[in-house]
Amino acid sequence: MPPDGVPLDFRIETTSGKARAGRLITPHAEVETPVFMPVGTLGSVKAIPQDTLEELGAQIILGNTYHLYLRPGVETVRRMGGLHGFMSWPRAILTDSGGFQVFSLNELRKVTEEGVTFRSHLDGSSHFFTPESAMEAQIGLGADIIMAFDECTEFPVDRERMRASMELTARWAARSKAYFEDHKHEVPWAGNAHVGTDAFVRPAGQSSTFADDPNRNAGKAEVGSSRKEAAELRSAGRTNASVPTWAEQTQALFGIVQGGMDRDLRRESALRTIEIGFSGYAIGGLSVGEPRELTREIVESTLEHLPADKPRYLMGVGTPEEIVEYANLGVDMMDCVLPTRAARHGLLFTSEGKVSIKQARYAQDQGPLDPNCGCRVCRRYSRAYLRHLYASNEVLAQVLNTIHNLSFYLDTMRRVRHSIRLGEECGFLSSVWSRPKP
Amino acid sequence: MPPDGVPLDFRIETTSGKARAGRLITPHAEVETPVFMPVGTLGSVKAIPQDTLEELGAQIILGNTYHLYLRPGVETVRRMGGLHGFMSWPRAILTDSGGFQVFSLNELRKVTEEGVTFRSHLDGSSHFFTPESAMEAQIGLGADIIMAFDECTEFPVDRERMRASMELTARWAARSKAYFEDHKHEVPWAGNAHVGTDAFVRPAGQSSTFADDPNRNAGKAEVGSSRKEAAELRSAGRTNASVPTWAEQTQALFGIVQGGMDRDLRRESALRTIEIGFSGYAIGGLSVGEPRELTREIVESTLEHLPADKPRYLMGVGTPEEIVEYANLGVDMMDCVLPTRAARHGLLFTSEGKVSIKQARYAQDQGPLDPNCGCRVCRRYSRAYLRHLYASNEVLAQVLNTIHNLSFYLDTMRRVRHSIRLGEECGFLSSVWSRPKP
Repeated sequence: MPPDGVPLDFRIETTSGKARAGRLITPHAEVETPVFMPVGTLGSVKAIPQDTLEELGAQIILGNTYHLYLRPGVETVRRMGGLHGFMSWPRAILTDSGGFQVFSLNELRKVTEEGVTFRSHLDGSSHFFTPESAMEAQIGLGADIIMAFDECTEFPVDRERMRASMELTARWAARSKAYFEDHKHEVPWAGNAHVGTDAFVRPAGQSSTFADDPNRNAGKAEVGSSRKEAAELRSAGRTNASVPTWAEQTQALFGIVQGGMDRDLRRESALRTIEIGFSGYAIGGLSVGEPRELTREIVESTLEHLPADKPRYLMGVGTPEEIVEYANLGVDMMDCVLPTRAARHGLLFTSEGKVSIKQARYAQDQGPLDPNCGCRVCRRYSRAYLRHLYASNEVLAQVLNTIHNLSFYLDTMRRVRHSIRLGEECGFLSSVWSRPKP
Repeated sequence: MPPDGVPLDFRIETTSGKARAGRLITPHAEVETPVFMPVGTLGSVKAIPQDTLEELGAQIILGNTYHLYLRPGVETVRRMGGLHGFMSWPRAILTDSGGFQVFSLNELRKVTEEGVTFRSHLDGSSHFFTPESAMEAQIGLGADIIMAFDECTEFPVDRERMRASMELTARWAARSKAYFEDHKHEVPWAGNAHVGTDAFVRPAGQSSTFADDPNRNAGKAEVGSSRKEAAELRSAGRTNASVPTWAEQTQALFGIVQGGMDRDLRRESALRTIEIGFSGYAIGGLSVGEPRELTREIVESTLEHLPADKPRYLMGVGTPEEIVEYANLGVDMMDCVLPTRAARHGLLFTSEGKVSIKQARYAQDQGPLDPNCGCRVCRRYSRAYLRHLYASNEVLAQVLNTIHNLSFYLDTMRRVRHSIRLGEECGFLSSVWSRPKP
């Protein structure tokens, strides 16, 4: 349990070179680091039931605020006790700020000092996110770790634009922090949340994040009883209990370092973000199309400016090789859609290299997908069967492919942690992994 | 273990009224009857991993010969040791003859005394099924129970057409039986299969079922080694072992009674089919659009003509209410796509009636889908979450909905068997089940 009033406890237990093995103690669960976080965009890691995720050893998953805000809406999730209760996930959750999706899914967005106007990719409806409303949404979703609202810029971009964007992100970080400090006790599972008439008052001039939600007012009145029901569920031993084990706990807020591909801007962004003060620090704005060498260079140089005693989260990265590489550089947390998205396209990661299971060469292949993998897919099914499922558009292809790829990523991180604890460089990962199978 | 040389042992252990509770001992597994068989069209019960099917208590599943013949092709399945090895399913399997799909998916089919010419629904390619080639395909697929090739007629149809069709089915049944007796030892898992040069010779004038399969000849040479590999897998304790536990075993062939909605034609069809002699008898050609009262009447009258000591299989039926009703009439085996197909459309069967989970009324519903159900979906997730997954087109909706519906069907049959053993009428099923939830 973290010290009273501290939302997150991070303990580095071993280091090996720059790499650190430790433990992140969040309100809902402990997380061993370095950790890979599967992406559960809409409150579901696509195609995978929660009990399977547990069996795979997923310790923390990521939810996308932008998507959950549009469907099913923050108020619905809040009334279920937050994302933990809504999706029946008792372990840790992190939500992003929505910034990345607002910028990547919306060509017609309009950015001002105040915030971003954007259109829903679902129905074209207009919405407005500010640092404050993004915090409000993330507090309602109730993840263990939430992210400051940042601007994500396109790549490549000129230095002036990049500096202006980095400075805007810094100002938004300060506003995110201020709103969070004032409202953090409104998290649906907080024991001492005060849900009063002022709880949802918006800063002057801002429209409600939830203005389009017809259930908004109904929900407001029931937040208290919803929390009570959740507590009753917990005491009854129901598996969808979602209330953390100590009552005074709140969420942890992380800041995001931007600055594009410029080492000086990254340094400045890091210093300004640290000055505001967060429970952890993320590196954003990478893996946006730049060469991999440049990503590594920026990650390495940015890490030098981050405090050693706080968790470091590299956003949206990467291949199996990359997650090992960045763990070696001292990154503690990573997330990426690659294992789940690639699985849906029949691209599977194995100890012998990448396998594109759709290929006709596997049609008669009776061997397991990966002879060195102990996951339930590799233990039971042949490549021929997986190829048949994919070629026949069977939904089971997506289920089994995703189970294997997640198993591969989570197992890779398990081995990384083990190597660090043994004091070894994580050299077990040969470069063959990300190449097509010979 | 069935007596030597008998492919199937059927033991009626208790009767209650017309209902029978018993045990069907197939080459791969014992099956408690009455049994509901989930449909696994393409070697996959859609969206459900095999270990989940096992946990749900599925004892026997159904594969569609038509679909498997087109994808991945019979020879591919044969080389994997049959469907059991191909899909890694150690329990019992039944395949249909392909007749139903040939007739229901092909408007341009052409029927002659010899067989049916039809076009693939996938690519329009032309194919020819005869009783012999349908048997050849089913022997290659290697299910425990296979079906005689029959003609399925449209509904409604005049009596002359129905009589002619019933008589054609009877002649095809005799040809199916004859081919099966000559070739049954070619099943991929048969200990004494003789795969020689004559094993694939077709009756004069018939083209090969596999003429379009480029792997045909390659596969032929490897059937033996494939069987040997399967035996090695089994002795190594691999979960995808697919060789039955005694070596002399072959598949069991069931005949199909047709005759439309005419009780006299049904009686005549039953007598002619019994005269040919099969290990079990199916009632086909029902649930094709006729009123439910008529279905029941035809089932009831046809059952009177079937031998009491052989398993009775009612094909393609039905709702939860219907499977209980027909078990009460003395049916031992049933299959239906309803639980799996309805699940994909968000239609869920519960002890309180049908639930259309897409409805907005469930958006805030924190209760379980069915408070009286102990399946892993009802234990863990709320209606609100299931509704969100469905409304958001998440693949997990299909996975979880299918798990629940199959659990409901299999649990219903478990209760039917229990009631019969207690000597009760299976009256626990109220008619509320198939009505929409009030």
